[in-house]
Amino acid sequence: MALRIDLNCDMGESFGVWKLGNDEGIMPYVSSANIACGFHGGDPATMRKTVAAALKHGVALGAHPGLPDLQGFGRRNMAITDQEAYDMMVVQIGALAAVAASQGAKLRHVKAHGQLYNMAVKDEGLARALAQATYDVDKNLVFFVLASSPMVRIAESVGVTVASEVFGDRNYMPDGTLSPRNKPGAMIEDVQVSIKQVLQMVKTGTLTANDGSIVKVQADTLCIHGDQPGAVTFAKAIREALQAEGIEVSA
Amino acid sequence: MALRIDLNCDMGESFGVWKLGNDEGIMPYVSSANIACGFHGGDPATMRKTVAAALKHGVALGAHPGLPDLQGFGRRNMAITDQEAYDMMVVQIGALAAVAASQGAKLRHVKAHGQLYNMAVKDEGLARALAQATYDVDKNLVFFVLASSPMVRIAESVGVTVASEVFGDRNYMPDGTLSPRNKPGAMIEDVQVSIKQVLQMVKTGTLTANDGSIVKVQADTLCIHGDQPGAVTFAKAIREALQAEGIEVSA
Amino acid sequence: MALRIDLNCDMGESFGVWKLGNDEGIMPYVSSANIACGFHGGDPATMRKTVAAALKHGVALGAHPGLPDLQGFGRRNMAITDQEAYDMMVVQIGALAAVAASQGAKLRHVKAHGQLYNMAVKDEGLARALAQATYDVDKNLVFFVLASSPMVRIAESVGVTVASEVFGDRNYMPDGTLSPRNKPGAMIEDVQVSIKQVLQMVKTGTLTANDGSIVKVQADTLCIHGDQPGAVTFAKAIREALQAEGIEVSA
Amino acid sequence: MALRIDLNCDMGESFGVWKLGNDEGIMPYVSSANIACGFHGGDPATMRKTVAAALKHGVALGAHPGLPDLQGFGRRNMAITDQEAYDMMVVQIGALAAVAASQGAKLRHVKAHGQLYNMAVKDEGLARALAQATYDVDKNLVFFVLASSPMVRIAESVGVTVASEVFGDRNYMPDGTLSPRNKPGAMIEDVQVSIKQVLQMVKTGTLTANDGSIVKVQADTLCIHGDQPGAVTFAKAIREALQAEGIEVSA
Repeated sequence: MALRIDLNCDMGESFGVWKLGNDEGIMPYVSSANIACGFHGGDPATMRKTVAAALKHGVALGAHPGLPDLQGFGRRNMAITDQEAYDMMVVQIGALAAVAASQGAKLRHVKAHGQLYNMAVKDEGLARALAQATYDVDKNLVFFVLASSPMVRIAESVGVTVASEVFGDRNYMPDGTLSPRNKPGAMIEDVQVSIKQVLQMVKTGTLTANDGSIVKVQADTLCIHGDQPGAVTFAKAIREALQAEGIEVSA
Repeated sequence: MALRIDLNCDMGESFGVWKLGNDEGIMPYVSSANIACGFHGGDPATMRKTVAAALKHGVALGAHPGLPDLQGFGRRNMAITDQEAYDMMVVQIGALAAVAASQGAKLRHVKAHGQLYNMAVKDEGLARALAQATYDVDKNLVFFVLASSPMVRIAESVGVTVASEVFGDRNYMPDGTLSPRNKPGAMIEDVQVSIKQVLQMVKTGTLTANDGSIVKVQADTLCIHGDQPGAVTFAKAIREALQAEGIEVSA
Repeated sequence: MALRIDLNCDMGESFGVWKLGNDEGIMPYVSSANIACGFHGGDPATMRKTVAAALKHGVALGAHPGLPDLQGFGRRNMAITDQEAYDMMVVQIGALAAVAASQGAKLRHVKAHGQLYNMAVKDEGLARALAQATYDVDKNLVFFVLASSPMVRIAESVGVTVASEVFGDRNYMPDGTLSPRNKPGAMIEDVQVSIKQVLQMVKTGTLTANDGSIVKVQADTLCIHGDQPGAVTFAKAIREALQAEGIEVSA
Repeated sequence: MALRIDLNCDMGESFGVWKLGNDEGIMPYVSSANIACGFHGGDPATMRKTVAAALKHGVALGAHPGLPDLQGFGRRNMAITDQEAYDMMVVQIGALAAVAASQGAKLRHVKAHGQLYNMAVKDEGLARALAQATYDVDKNLVFFVLASSPMVRIAESVGVTVASEVFGDRNYMPDGTLSPRNKPGAMIEDVQVSIKQVLQMVKTGTLTANDGSIVKVQADTLCIHGDQPGAVTFAKAIREALQAEGIEVSA
């Protein structure tokens, strides 16, 4: 059976007159688009255009719900209740699902944005709320979780289909979790090192942690950061390396 | 065949800590709830609670999309393009549809809110955009239009199922359109006069215009204003009068 | 010299069509109005009306800046930086100062709202940012701090004039800080007990903590909660009790 | 006496993570900055940074209040009342004035933004509200009006100090008003033609209308559009041409 991985990237984060990211440049290299739903970024017109662009490139559609903090781009921790998290997931997923429907398409996945994602990695109640909201809106949606984190088990217990997300530009700890960003070496900036890590993940189901140990990892979808300089080059290089190895890139 | 009319009322217009309307009091007497979707009023939690309340009372669910003007409650004219109108309809309908789905239910109808509705009555391009958005999100949705207005024909040409909306507390012109609010006698404040007008509409398919002429009218759904003093009393009286005449009240 | 205390109350927290609080009922009994500035509540029209009402009653004007979270009414913790806190204070104070200026008046004080206040009580950097912003906008403004908290010292070190705020409806710990709300007996609901506590504070500069010990307290301004049932009755009773003792109520 | 003109440009229109314009590039060539106040663009941090940048370059500070339509960037007509216009001016001017005060500076002028400006050119009640708000907040503020429009007379009748604004990149009608943008030749794209028009305005107090007639014009301040390709080149060329003619560029 052919090896396979999904490449996902945040998209549609412009707002009104303000542009952000390089969706057009990245779109050809990814297989899943996480599309902002208006809370941390995005607006109705941007959602429409981003869905259209993804469909044009055969990229799977995903909702990317965020915290209700446009000014902070959903990157500031907010003390929301699980119920509030559930509610804000539901409406954001629904908004994008309708945009997809109006273009004859369906959402495939949901990935929480920014600090909402980060908070859910550390808070089981929140993780459950996000997974449950996704499942309750549409049982066929795939919910993205951080590989090897408690989110995996919690989401599975809810019944939602799970995709474990891994990173090519982040270093890992011996327990399979991400090295904190403020640690030296936490970020992998060398494309070749990144590619090597990704290929190892897909081909062997393992990663080499920052202490040299080999750790099991479930790599269903790889996060491509679209907002960094060189993002397109990086996305292209990863995609080509995967294809050169005969690994299928698809949602 | 039994005569029938739908009673619709705006609901779920609270926002955050701020309460508005008397949803609980009105809900038992109506058959369709027009639920705010967050642009002119409403928020994710309010949407959830309002959907739950409507389901509890067997009231049909409808999206009530408005202009992006929370401070002005969607009551200020905004010069939006048809495309902007389409886009804001899609995301608002979708948001509420997901809330319904998360409670195992579906939306039945869509009614534009406040000034968005008023603008569409006078602007064919806008009317078409609203109807098309509704149809594109879900072909099974019923789109509410002002009875005898150009919206009827435009919406029908789009292919969406149409329900013609009439008013019990407004006087009509000989051409079947509403008397402007600023005209003396435009508002009907006497409940008995209102009831008489509604019964005539349902039983004979006509109304008596302000010049005494008898005009044809299609009365599919009657708008109950929930934000006025005596709204519950009015809703109750209308409902009881209809039932006393053997007229079915249902969506 | 006559004893004196200021009575302050949150005001102007309506938003658009949504009403909140009972400003009209409370205004006659207080000497300082903390007026919402549009981030957690309030809007330009409400700010204008609230300033006018305060001026009519001879009540001192204060800005009541909050977190940028209208939906959560500024009551949800947000992980803002000190610089963000400083910036949001400056613009909110300025907005209300201009409303005051347009009516020929000046602001007298600034009190942070809700969770912004609570966060500053526990975070010295934040407390300093709020005090500094107040001072930098206008050196004549009085900055409200929680009596006996670290805010007092920090604000004083900034150079801003400080008023220590006390509560009549809250129980105190032996160290002079408030009993946590979730502790039994933390809230004082008996008006007579409240009045007794307030009179002791003003007349003796002490309070009786929840272990019976007598603790020193600086009582410059007393917080009147306007959003609770019986708020007007409570405000009236406190005011009358103070006047009966010959204590001046003024900003 | 030396001839003089002010060069003004919109600044500080970024919002949160979203960048807009090229403030840094334009700042060295203008003498007045119209700084967004958060309604159509801008946010507290952007306001602070823009004020700092203007002060660094010796550029005069102005408030640039807009319609409450962030998504539409204040460019969509909104049916606001004169009172609403007055109120939104007051709070926005105040917000920026406080940012200036916190940096030891004062505002010099106020210019309404985008559609609010356009609406005021055509609506006397609105023009009066904007002028009155400016005057009521601070009698020393200069209010920018469209040269030769009814705004001039109305603002003068309010008592506010007026500066008449002219355009170098717009063609004029024989009555001294701007050619509508949709007319052929309405926009002047050739820098040399623009410079010629500006020099004529400053040196002779006249302009050559699109029918060849010579029309009187009061040119106090020239609008530099910062959001167009080549904006910096254009600003630099205008400034250098003015200086080459010995015309003082200052607020």
